[in-house]
Amino acid sequence: MLDYPLLAALAAVIREGGFERAAVVLGVTPSAVSQRIRALEERVGAALVVRSQPPVPTEAGARLCAHVEKVRLLEGELASDLPALAGPGPGVPALPVAVNADSLGSWFLPAAARFSEATGALLHLVLDDEAHTAARLRSGEVLAAVTAEPAAVPGCRTRRLGALRYVACASPAFQARYFAEGVTAAALNRAPVLQFDRKDGLQARWLRQHFDQALTAPTHQVPSTQGFLDASLVGLGWALHPLPLAAVPLAEGRLVELVPGAGMDVVLHWQHARLGARLLETLTREVAAEAARSLFPVAGLSALPEPAPDPSRSAPVPTDPASR
Amino acid sequence: MLDYPLLAALAAVIREGGFERAAVVLGVTPSAVSQRIRALEERVGAALVVRSQPPVPTEAGARLCAHVEKVRLLEGELASDLPALAGPGPGVPALPVAVNADSLGSWFLPAAARFSEATGALLHLVLDDEAHTAARLRSGEVLAAVTAEPAAVPGCRTRRLGALRYVACASPAFQARYFAEGVTAAALNRAPVLQFDRKDGLQARWLRQHFDQALTAPTHQVPSTQGFLDASLVGLGWALHPLPLAAVPLAEGRLVELVPGAGMDVVLHWQHARLGARLLETLTREVAAEAARSLFPVAGLSALPEPAPDPSRSAPVPTDPASR
Repeated sequence: MLDYPLLAALAAVIREGGFERAAVVLGVTPSAVSQRIRALEERVGAALVVRSQPPVPTEAGARLCAHVEKVRLLEGELASDLPALAGPGPGVPALPVAVNADSLGSWFLPAAARFSEATGALLHLVLDDEAHTAARLRSGEVLAAVTAEPAAVPGCRTRRLGALRYVACASPAFQARYFAEGVTAAALNRAPVLQFDRKDGLQARWLRQHFDQALTAPTHQVPSTQGFLDASLVGLGWALHPLPLAAVPLAEGRLVELVPGAGMDVVLHWQHARLGARLLETLTREVAAEAARSLFPVAGLSALPEPAPDPSRSAPVPTDPASR
Repeated sequence: MLDYPLLAALAAVIREGGFERAAVVLGVTPSAVSQRIRALEERVGAALVVRSQPPVPTEAGARLCAHVEKVRLLEGELASDLPALAGPGPGVPALPVAVNADSLGSWFLPAAARFSEATGALLHLVLDDEAHTAARLRSGEVLAAVTAEPAAVPGCRTRRLGALRYVACASPAFQARYFAEGVTAAALNRAPVLQFDRKDGLQARWLRQHFDQALTAPTHQVPSTQGFLDASLVGLGWALHPLPLAAVPLAEGRLVELVPGAGMDVVLHWQHARLGARLLETLTREVAAEAARSLFPVAGLSALPEPAPDPSRSAPVPTDPASR
């Protein structure tokens, strides 16, 4: 067997973001933490931690951390079957999961709540662009991820969840100011547009898809799902918003859809470590159930049922990978 | 004068997150970008960019980038006075500003909208913990910040905005399940609690302040302001939420305050580069006006007016610095 006190020191340094904090968690001195990590590095024959602020794992270090987190999860399940085994400490297993901001802000949380209710387990959610959540699974930082990546990460299972539909919206005052003469590509490029962050290419892809034009509009950056919606509501700019969030302000007339029916779908997948851990299976079941309720089915190679008729949702539009 | 084409190449690499993307923006080849940065490094006699993915500036590189962003802002203002001066390109100045997530999610955006409406300028918002936004100002990544740091960053002006009040809340079902026998320190440490991320010590500080106890409760991590509120609404855990966000669900009975009147105030400050730029002055005015409306006045050394009587707000509580 591997030397778990050494591995636990490594994982604690990465998880806690520092040698001192890891020492507090482990109940040893910071110099003991350093010694354990040096001992592990000598055995492995490679550097495991870049001593930056905060410390970051090398590739080898990340693999070892991923291993520790998996063992910890399995131990957590064992402890719930055999309570006498559980040592001191909280003992409640926590599942690290990467989610894109728009999923967290629009459909993911009811699944998380049912999972937690059923299992008593905790979730440590990590936010990232859906184009990058799979990398966090690959590095072992998380054990499951909502991702735009359909191909299974090594050691993981993947399943398609469905499409998160986006609609291009603005406030009525914004529409009156910038689109009084119609929503044309030229008008869209004159009006200020919102971008989640530099990686967010959704607005540009939508303009390309529906108007065959490059996006050159002046751009605000607002890196928060709800802040993004609020920024459209107060008239800062037009933008694509997830339909589950935009539906109510659209129905109330506080937002207007710029080109009715011209939505854009982002297909999401669920990937999780192939561990046979009950916690992961329960979370997978709840996530799949919530996705079936909240996301749009995706037409694949074979015929699939049509999206459920829902008057608040516009007609489906071909799928396009996106970076938010 | 400094060599601005070289400086612009450096700033573009950092802003765009890569040599290729910087080349596209500058309209030159990636190798021209590399040459310019090497030339600048030779003149400065120091490395300016760590060639990682994405590239990150060294301390010297960050200072040069900060200088470029300031010059660009001043040029943007000049161009609006002397349109003939403006070269090709969008020409709309964008102001990089760091904001903590809870401010963005609760009170900041109306000020941003009025600023943008009045000036036509763009905002590039960067999210960080209010304990860390001042560091982004110090590094020159942003020109203004909402921060918990009262002392002026070198080259900046600082002013106190007021206190963002937090209240400890849970859903009624959660309260019935975990606090049927009263909200005691023991019950609070048995019930699952939410944490924004590892840096978020607000719940622990609240428990220490009102119950003189350490927080040992099982902890979910949900790193999104609105997601944090939604997680309490669906019953994932109890947590401290900004009063401007929690007020409506509290009034509607979808959240309950765990210990009525036991809020916690986080004092926020506004710091901005001392530039004499009109854009910064306009934004400062709008931010101060919105803060006066939405935040609580802070009792200082001298007598200050009482908070405006507002039935939806509980009695003021002594100030405590916090990390969210």
